[in-house]
Amino acid sequence: MGLFTRDIESMNDLFVHELQDIYYAEQQIVGALPQMISKATAPQLRTAFDSHLQETRNHIRRLEQVFQMQGMTPKGIDCPAIDGIIKEANEVAGDVADKNILDAALIACAQAVEHYEISKYGTLIAWANQLGRNDCAQILQQTLAEEKAADEKLTLIAEGQINRAAA
Amino acid sequence: MGLFTRDIESMNDLFVHELQDIYYAEQQIVGALPQMISKATAPQLRTAFDSHLQETRNHIRRLEQVFQMQGMTPKGIDCPAIDGIIKEANEVAGDVADKNILDAALIACAQAVEHYEISKYGTLIAWANQLGRNDCAQILQQTLAEEKAADEKLTLIAEGQINRAAA
Repeated sequence: MGLFTRDIESMNDLFVHELQDIYYAEQQIVGALPQMISKATAPQLRTAFDSHLQETRNHIRRLEQVFQMQGMTPKGIDCPAIDGIIKEANEVAGDVADKNILDAALIACAQAVEHYEISKYGTLIAWANQLGRNDCAQILQQTLAEEKAADEKLTLIAEGQINRAAA
Repeated sequence: MGLFTRDIESMNDLFVHELQDIYYAEQQIVGALPQMISKATAPQLRTAFDSHLQETRNHIRRLEQVFQMQGMTPKGIDCPAIDGIIKEANEVAGDVADKNILDAALIACAQAVEHYEISKYGTLIAWANQLGRNDCAQILQQTLAEEKAADEKLTLIAEGQINRAAA
């Protein structure tokens, strides 16, 4: 990308670029969540991760719908940000032996993922509205609401149980 | 990290690990912001980035204070997440020719950085409180408030001016 050509010539190109970025990111998250579920100990946390895995598959379907509304075939592009966030999650998880502390570390990693997505969906919605594509914005808004709810649920689980068990 | 030893044995170790992670991240952000300032066109955006550069230097000083309160020498560790977020920012910026669209792209990248930090400081504050270090939590809370304010300011700039100019 970007070495010899400048492929983004319009705001719509930038919107599609960001759509492709989060499409790739959601797929990496679907790939990473089963490992996080298997590493988690607290049943409440495993359930939360599992439920978010189902939601994430639905986020991918919604993105495919938005691609179609743009008259485009769904396609992902490399997203070094999500790759870095997931790499960091694997590294820190590999450094923790105690299962209660590992649960606290897994929540922190998952919340970094959620915040990346909150930032990206927020941007996509603002751009869709600006481009007059309120129909696309409405679909993406459903996902943003679920990402925010997932983040809040993780905070509640961490503060209600996990951090106390780990400390 | 993490291949042959498991260095994180306590919740305090995990707290320090996260502190070292964000200490490295803040330094990378101080390194990246001058390039973002030089690429930005809208004066309001340049001013916002410049003001956040000053704040970020102060965030580093606050982290050094927290390291000292832990009886530790400040030290950073590799943070693949922030490296990935900054790499992605450079890639997308290299793909955009039009200056108005570039401003919109720069804001999106900066908000991804802000959200990463919001997630990390939120975690650090929760862990500090759980560890009975409300003194550390209070210092980190000041930074979290500034990161949230920076993110909100960027949203206002994007929606008030930049996105309209780009579309």
